[in-house]
This record gives sequence, C-alpha cells and structure tokens, in this order.
Amino acid sequence: MEFKRLSILGVGLLGGSIGLVVKKLASGGDIVGYGHRASTLETAMRLGAIDRSTTSAADAVREADLVILCTPVGTFRPLLQEIAGSLTPGAIVTDVGSTKRSVVRLAEELLPESVQFVGSHPMAGSEKRGVEFARADLFSGALCILTPTDRTNAGALAKVENFWAEFGMRTKRLTPDDHDRLICDVSHLPHALAASLVAMQSDAALELAGKGFQDTTRVAAGDAGLWRDILLDNADCVKSSIARLRGQLDELEKRLDPSQAKALFEWLQAAANKRSRE
Amino acid sequence: MEFKRLSILGVGLLGGSIGLVVKKLASGGDIVGYGHRASTLETAMRLGAIDRSTTSAADAVREADLVILCTPVGTFRPLLQEIAGSLTPGAIVTDVGSTKRSVVRLAEELLPESVQFVGSHPMAGSEKRGVEFARADLFSGALCILTPTDRTNAGALAKVENFWAEFGMRTKRLTPDDHDRLICDVSHLPHALAASLVAMQSDAALELAGKGFQDTTRVAAGDAGLWRDILLDNADCVKSSIARLRGQLDELEKRLDPSQAKALFEWLQAAANKRSRE
Repeated sequence: MEFKRLSILGVGLLGGSIGLVVKKLASGGDIVGYGHRASTLETAMRLGAIDRSTTSAADAVREADLVILCTPVGTFRPLLQEIAGSLTPGAIVTDVGSTKRSVVRLAEELLPESVQFVGSHPMAGSEKRGVEFARADLFSGALCILTPTDRTNAGALAKVENFWAEFGMRTKRLTPDDHDRLICDVSHLPHALAASLVAMQSDAALELAGKGFQDTTRVAAGDAGLWRDILLDNADCVKSSIARLRGQLDELEKRLDPSQAKALFEWLQAAANKRSRE
Repeated sequence: MEFKRLSILGVGLLGGSIGLVVKKLASGGDIVGYGHRASTLETAMRLGAIDRSTTSAADAVREADLVILCTPVGTFRPLLQEIAGSLTPGAIVTDVGSTKRSVVRLAEELLPESVQFVGSHPMAGSEKRGVEFARADLFSGALCILTPTDRTNAGALAKVENFWAEFGMRTKRLTPDDHDRLICDVSHLPHALAASLVAMQSDAALELAGKGFQDTTRVAAGDAGLWRDILLDNADCVKSSIARLRGQLDELEKRLDPSQAKALFEWLQAAANKRSRE
C-alpha cells in the first residue's frame, strides 16, 4: 500500500470499513480516526478499524500522507477549514461523499497549494449507519468514481485510484458535473422516491406490504442527516431528475386506458428488458 | 386437505407452485392443469406440479371440487365464460389475481348459482415468470387476502381460507374495494414507479447503478403482460395513488432549499422511522 499514515475523518460505516480494509491490506501503517463522539471512536478502536483516535480534526491530519473525508457532505466546509493549516506538504486529501461538485470546489478554494485533492465516490454503503456495521468486504465489487478537474495532479489521481482499486473496486473517472447529474438519477432520485413512497402509506396499507414493497423502499431507512446533506447539496439535479420522473408518470397515465393496452404493454416491456439487462 | 380434485387454470409461476404445495400436502388427490401452451403443460407435468393436463379450460374443471384461476386478470372474463357451463354443482372457484373488484363482479355475473366463488390474493410471486421457477415454498410466510362480499357463502369462504392457511400463509379478509385501494399503494404503485425510474435512465447513468438502484427497481423486471392487466384493471386506484405520490414529491421539492434543511431532515427521518418499523 502506497500510503503509510492515514487519517480517517469520520469513523462511521464508510470510515470504519475503510480502516478495516487498510488494516487487512497493510501491516505497519498507522491510522488516526477523527470523530466528535468518544463512544464511536472507542468502538472503532475496539473493532480494529483505527490505531489512534482524536476529537480534533487538525490533530488527526497533522502527519498523514492520505486524508479521507468520511463525514456527511454538509460538514465538508468547516472540516476543510479546520484541517487546511495542519496538513503536511505533499499530503493527498480525498473524500467519500455522494456529491462531487461542491467538495471539489471547496477543496480548490480552501486547501493550500502544497497538498493535492482528488474527489472520490466509492459507491458502497447500506441503509445501516454507524461503525458497528463496518465490514472489510463492504467495497468488494463496487464502483468507485473519481472526479478529477483541470487542477488535479495526475500523480495524486493515480495514487488515489490505485488505493481504491486495492479495495476490490472498479474505478471510473467522471467530471464533477457528470457525476452529480448521473448519480442523481440512479441514487439520489431513487432515495427521494423511496422516501416519498413510504411517506404516503397509511398504516392499513403498510400492514399488507410484501417483499416487492420492502425491496423498493429499503433505501428509505437510510440515515436522514446524511441524505438531507446529499439532497440539499445536489438540489438542482434532484429537481431536474424529479421533473423527468414526473414526465414518465405522465407517459404511464396516458396509457392507463383499455384503448392504450398495447402502448402500456410496450412501455412496461421496455422497462422490464432494460432492468433485466442490469 | 379438504379438496380432492383440483383444477389449476394457468400453470405459470403461481399455478405451478400451488400444484407443488398441494402434491406435498395431500396424497391421493388429483390435479388437472389447464394452459394453452403444450410446452408449459409438459414442464408442469415433469416438475410434478400437476397430474393431468388439458388445453381445454372446460374439460379442466369438469370434475373439480376446487378451481383456481391463475391466469393474468385480463383473461378472467373469457375464462369464466368458458368454464361456467362445465362446473360441478357444489364446486368452489377462487383465483390468485392481484386485483379483486373486477373478478368478484365477473364471477357473480357469470358463474351459475350452483357453485361458490371466493376471491383470493396470495401475495407471493417474484419478478421471474414461468412454471420453471415454481417452488413449493413460494407462499411460506406470505399474506393471503380474501375478499368476501354479501353474496359469499360462509362455508366456502372458510374452506378457501383453510386451504391457503395450509400453504403456510397468514390470511386476512378485506372488501374488494379496500383490497384494490390498499394493494395499489403497496404493490401496483411501487411497480409503476420502478418501471418509470428504469424508463427514464440513460445508458451512462445505468452503468453507474449500484445495489440501491437494483433493490429499488427489481420489481420492474416483472412480466409486462401480467402488469399491463393489473394496471388497467385497477386504473382508477393507480391514478389516485400516483396523484398522492406526486403530492409527496411536491412536499420534498419545497424542502430542497438550505432554508428548509430542518424540515427536509424531519421528512426524511419520518420516512426512515416508518420504513424501519416494517
């Protein structure tokens, strides 16, 4: 493993799982975990996800050669401000946020020229929250998207890409704009829809819910604070995705008439074929 | 088992699975399977889901004491017309359709006074189609809704209820109206949403889809012909459910602004809590 001194800012499900993978892959490295709750840090220590812990983000990054932001995206501005003055020259900073435009912009605005930032989005996780659900195999087979810009250092990008590849992930590069727009369609909108679908249910209907409903709404059980940050940070894309989803519902409603049975079948068949290709 | 001679009209995933369960529960019974494709009937015979087969629905019901309609709901009118004159006096007819108002109305209109109809909806199935996916444990732990009316014979209702209970299902009685309205919210609307969500995706977005998207859209891979029939048959409820879902999206969109962060959190938290209770 390229990096010897790792700083994980936020040791929840993702941060904790990253620690577990790194401890598995590398011996002799040093991982500092930052968090604001002592109990979380204790659990992370007990699980072997980190070697040392601190409630000061500035202290956590002081000697690190790789710093990974694993807190909700809404905290990135104060967090980057707090660590900016304590980073070692030559350090690389990355993140695991589900939105990329804002963090790339903030990093380019707030971090010193002496460090390199590379935006990452390892697409792993679950509706569970907290370090107690951390697993070394959380990332296996998942996709990790990297979002370099014109200002991204090519060497740092390659190193971060290799780092995630060692986790068993496929990697892909996208612009921050493309990332936020495309991920909105396949992740942020599905979450918004699942939450809407749950929100509209009566108790009488919920009593009848079967496996289909449970699959369709599983993601809605996810961490509300995390998702508030994501949906607010990507609000323009979310609105645009909702508008296009409404357009599909219009198409469906037009076909909800016996005279449109063939068109309804074709619309459903096209969706079934597209889904089965997955 | 109460019934000795069973007629399964339509030996797909559900009809085939019913045959497998009955053969497991009862010895010495006789199951006739009806279908219009010889290859399906042959597979059902080979799997041991039926004892005899015919491509004539009238022949299939001639000696049966329990007849189960397992074809898509759009076929119920011609099917009931075809069997009406061949049913044995005293026979009980039920179905496994996902909508109940229309089949109850058709049965009361088309079947002779000498037989008893009881509407059933065993809430089992999957996005797979065809008898080759039939399983004797398909129904275990699922809910079966029965939809009696003023005209339903109490003895026949109890017998059908016991029949499904022997499959390992919980049973519940609802009016056909309540069934169609409530099941629309937890099953028909989720299918419509999943299909809409798949339909709107670009290839570039689909390439990035992870586990959340796959869970959320799994049902969209289901049989388009079956779902065309369900959505058309229940079109008024589907429209009303879509309208309420749009209302939830309105609520969400109002909160997609930093000034509404608290209201957005509360809306997401309420959905997460409701989903976690499931």
